[in-house]
Amino acid sequence: MAVRATVPVRDADDLSLAYTPGVAKVCAAIAEQPELAHDYTWTSQVVAVVTDGSAVLGLGDIGPAASMPVMEGKAILFKQFAGVDAVPIALDCRDTDEIVETVARLAPSFGGVNLEDIAAPRCFEIERKLQERLDIPVFHDDQHGTAVVTLAALRNAARLTGRGLAELRVVISGAGAAGVAIAKILLGAGIGDVALCDRRGVVSGDREDLTDVKREIAGLTNRAGLTGSLEDAMAGADVFIGVSGGTVPESAVARLAPGAFVFAMANPNPEIHPTVAARHAAVVATGRSDFPNQINNVLAFPGIFAGALQVRAARITEGMKLAAAEALAAVVADELTPQRVIPSPFDERVAPAVAAAVAAAARAEGVARR
Amino acid sequence: MAVRATVPVRDADDLSLAYTPGVAKVCAAIAEQPELAHDYTWTSQVVAVVTDGSAVLGLGDIGPAASMPVMEGKAILFKQFAGVDAVPIALDCRDTDEIVETVARLAPSFGGVNLEDIAAPRCFEIERKLQERLDIPVFHDDQHGTAVVTLAALRNAARLTGRGLAELRVVISGAGAAGVAIAKILLGAGIGDVALCDRRGVVSGDREDLTDVKREIAGLTNRAGLTGSLEDAMAGADVFIGVSGGTVPESAVARLAPGAFVFAMANPNPEIHPTVAARHAAVVATGRSDFPNQINNVLAFPGIFAGALQVRAARITEGMKLAAAEALAAVVADELTPQRVIPSPFDERVAPAVAAAVAAAARAEGVARR
Repeated sequence: MAVRATVPVRDADDLSLAYTPGVAKVCAAIAEQPELAHDYTWTSQVVAVVTDGSAVLGLGDIGPAASMPVMEGKAILFKQFAGVDAVPIALDCRDTDEIVETVARLAPSFGGVNLEDIAAPRCFEIERKLQERLDIPVFHDDQHGTAVVTLAALRNAARLTGRGLAELRVVISGAGAAGVAIAKILLGAGIGDVALCDRRGVVSGDREDLTDVKREIAGLTNRAGLTGSLEDAMAGADVFIGVSGGTVPESAVARLAPGAFVFAMANPNPEIHPTVAARHAAVVATGRSDFPNQINNVLAFPGIFAGALQVRAARITEGMKLAAAEALAAVVADELTPQRVIPSPFDERVAPAVAAAVAAAARAEGVARR
Repeated sequence: MAVRATVPVRDADDLSLAYTPGVAKVCAAIAEQPELAHDYTWTSQVVAVVTDGSAVLGLGDIGPAASMPVMEGKAILFKQFAGVDAVPIALDCRDTDEIVETVARLAPSFGGVNLEDIAAPRCFEIERKLQERLDIPVFHDDQHGTAVVTLAALRNAARLTGRGLAELRVVISGAGAAGVAIAKILLGAGIGDVALCDRRGVVSGDREDLTDVKREIAGLTNRAGLTGSLEDAMAGADVFIGVSGGTVPESAVARLAPGAFVFAMANPNPEIHPTVAARHAAVVATGRSDFPNQINNVLAFPGIFAGALQVRAARITEGMKLAAAEALAAVVADELTPQRVIPSPFDERVAPAVAAAVAAAARAEGVARR
């Protein structure tokens, strides 16, 4: 990627404006009336894509320098898909409070913060603490981007098969950042029930080994009171959502309820190969571009930030995420087939639709500032 | 300013390369062989323009948000004058160690750090501590950019009037970041003598009110053992350099040695109006674009960073700064007149000449890494 000047600096007059002495008037004006920064600088239109390099894609903890290609790629997608400027920032620190402090100090330079590839469980605390301190959107894409796109696909799968979310029982394999966020957004959308599973099986209140985050989620999910393994939980479930990186045997898939949905999103190897899943499920989605129904975060984060920045939202609320999922699903609502419950990443209707819905939801929820 | 993608993302193949899963291979390669980051990311080609907003132009302490127009303008000049990508970073913190720690944590994302508009004396300590910790160039432009351009103009003024630097006695008005740096680079270039003056007069070892930085500079300058006021020091001096923002009466200018040079660089109001200065001096320069001989940092910092990044210099040494001044002066060495001892900011020969000289000096001094 590269930086681009949006004004010419061709002669002494241009230089006097872009730099000393002309720029002093702009600075003085902002010092007196801070709101003017939004009109006179790029600050409120630019997103920091921040990582500590601790949980990069399937690679794990590879450190800040090696994580830069992901952050830079992400910055490019922000620009290409929604015209949002973004700057990759890989931090050389790991402590939760140090990361929070560092990003808070950077905040005057940015209009939003996209957290990326930070390991669970500290990603949850970092996002929460930062959002408490800052009045610009802080958004951990590995959680909420994935959750928004998953909910959109699930809405359309239900629409296609004539079912309501309230009648669906969902099993999620993987209780990291994405799994927890998917569980929460599904509950917010009115799902029937969710069982979240980690490597030891269903996350349930009777377990002694839960982190704070998992204990909280245990209190919100699993109304059915399931215990035992992932495969136990899958028996009779309507939806399987995989964000784990593990594999699930066909015998377990066969025990899902008739007409089930299988979203096996692990990359590069889905938990269940889509050809296998199709033998037992009505709708199949993966995280891969070479199979139908790709659950790809790029369907969400560019439009979500574009909408939030457009109205200078102070945060990204649950309502804004639900609105994003709704808008994303609606793009293909009239074109639904089992192979098409979610738009292609290159569907040009997506980012504008998501941005408009997010901006409207921000206004409705009172977090918009223009 | 804006961000620009340098690769297209038009279809699923492009997306797989720029983002998941293709980018994982790039990350894994860098994790194994960190040197590859230079080829596979923009990191080593991008400069962070960092401020705390505490000493912005003539405006003083206006805070980070209001300082963004200067940082953004600077980033644009980096790009326009030398093709260097730069990102404006205004920090919401003031403590020296906090600023050092914050910038050090950001460092994996950048190939160099340009410190800007940070108040003296903490700017000195911040630069020193950061350069000790980081193996990328850390450069406080208010000090060294100004010093390089001043030395270049002084070299050419001496060349024009047939004098050597060793025979010149210089008085500097203003002992902040710029004044201290100019004194040091002039000493490094072999100047005859320098007297640095602050609001209380000549900075000399017998004074009790000196900061650590001024005490150090008192030991290096003023071989003549001057005491007293700025006007006292100007009597018989060959060169007046103003970086103070104050004003100097014509009577003091009249007491300079015959054929003196007056560089009255305060912005927007020179310490001595150039029309007044011309009545007593052989060469007159200011910081303004509407008078001849503009001492403008943009003649230095773009080329200095371009040269340093080109050879992946670990730091910017005194030798690299001297080489930059030499190269900058040489651009107009065959075209000298009293109204033209320094090139115009729009002279397209400048940045390439400075970059080449800085890169060569980095190699000669053993700080280049390619």
